[in-house]
Amino acid sequence: MRIITYAIIMMSESRHGNDYNEFPFSDHEMKAVYKAIFSRRDVRSHFMSDKAIPNDALLRILNAAHHAPSVGFSQPWNFILIRNNSIKEQVKKSFLKEYKKSVSMLENDKQRQDKYISLKLEGIMESSINICVTYDPTRFGPFVLGRTSIEETGVYSVCCAIQNLWLAARVEGIGVGWVSILAKEDLHQILGIPKHIRPIAYLCLGYVEKFSSKPDLEVLGWISRLGLSEVICLEQWGITNSDNWQDFCTVLNRIEKS
Amino acid sequence: MRIITYAIIMMSESRHGNDYNEFPFSDHEMKAVYKAIFSRRDVRSHFMSDKAIPNDALLRILNAAHHAPSVGFSQPWNFILIRNNSIKEQVKKSFLKEYKKSVSMLENDKQRQDKYISLKLEGIMESSINICVTYDPTRFGPFVLGRTSIEETGVYSVCCAIQNLWLAARVEGIGVGWVSILAKEDLHQILGIPKHIRPIAYLCLGYVEKFSSKPDLEVLGWISRLGLSEVICLEQWGITNSDNWQDFCTVLNRIEKS
Repeated sequence: MRIITYAIIMMSESRHGNDYNEFPFSDHEMKAVYKAIFSRRDVRSHFMSDKAIPNDALLRILNAAHHAPSVGFSQPWNFILIRNNSIKEQVKKSFLKEYKKSVSMLENDKQRQDKYISLKLEGIMESSINICVTYDPTRFGPFVLGRTSIEETGVYSVCCAIQNLWLAARVEGIGVGWVSILAKEDLHQILGIPKHIRPIAYLCLGYVEKFSSKPDLEVLGWISRLGLSEVICLEQWGITNSDNWQDFCTVLNRIEKS
Repeated sequence: MRIITYAIIMMSESRHGNDYNEFPFSDHEMKAVYKAIFSRRDVRSHFMSDKAIPNDALLRILNAAHHAPSVGFSQPWNFILIRNNSIKEQVKKSFLKEYKKSVSMLENDKQRQDKYISLKLEGIMESSINICVTYDPTRFGPFVLGRTSIEETGVYSVCCAIQNLWLAARVEGIGVGWVSILAKEDLHQILGIPKHIRPIAYLCLGYVEKFSSKPDLEVLGWISRLGLSEVICLEQWGITNSDNWQDFCTVLNRIEKS
């Protein structure tokens, strides 16, 4: 009951607006948000399949997603919640078919192929809920404010919603795994998604025994994390140093060396 | 100095991994994350142009973006930081050109056109830093794990990074406005972005006098927020009620009515 009340408070705060938006974040609150960002993981194993997600936690997570930014406030997302095993099984079949294709793409690099085959890449059946997140380009259209020059911004909004969902799930102790080795046509067919609606993500949600301290692919040496300086340019593409950014570069170097 | 130390702690925690990932979030921490999600705004006005963003805050925000999920851990993003006024002015010109086109699209709906014209849609010059976020489809490629069936997942990763950036900025008290009324070709030309790299977002960052309690477009009556039940389907597209989801629907209805 306490939790349901909490859910209602969270939702009504966001819907009716309240003063807290005016207030700054305390150091403690700031740290909590960074903690969520840094400890969020893409989860494929350690799902506790016998521990169900309570409805109020699920609704808080979905409400967080629904409060993502969207171009022209178009809110072009839908969330198809899937608990039915026979539907999950059909999605799993699509995964297996696409996975086979992906393995064959590494035919000329046996070492990498072996490593690839050793990875667990989905938790469709073990996770307690699957969520297919879709994009509706027709919502509040055809004139969508801010989408007049770059059509794809509608899809970008849906991805922001997915990231909100992911972070909210993390603080609820719920792991999320994004299964992308699927055929879109299969999702259309299995989930009865109309042609004009685009499936964007297929997510597996469930309580997990643990969250790894680093991404699995980093731990397993598949790819290393890039240094922050490797993804920053100054004023224009390819520029990594400039007189006007001396102080910035000094702080960046200090952080990277520490 | 204290702040720089904090930045270093935040970054080294995330890079070297530590125990906190194993721990659950306290109620207080959970609330802080939901507060960030619900109070984040797309900001176009109220920028305090004379208050610069400190380098360490900017780096914490960029590091948060860099810790987004990415397909196959490909980290396909770059962040072009822009403070130079002459570059900003060129981007503003692109906005004005595209804006004119968008106004003409409402030629047949004068009432909506008037409302549209009354809106402030960008803060390019007033914000202290602009950031162009780009997508590199070639990074760690051509075989990117998880991108073999759905090519667009690479772009989706970049959008997740943008949402991390947005939430981190919010807790730092920094407003973010996404300017999407721009021509991609102009961004390529102005920022020297190579052909194979795709500009995804052009963001304006700066301290703001206030964060509105609701999205501007909602307050101004451009579009209303959809109810949560309107964006949820059960098991398949279009299904909003089912015997297996009775309890869920009861909680959802209770929340929506409250």
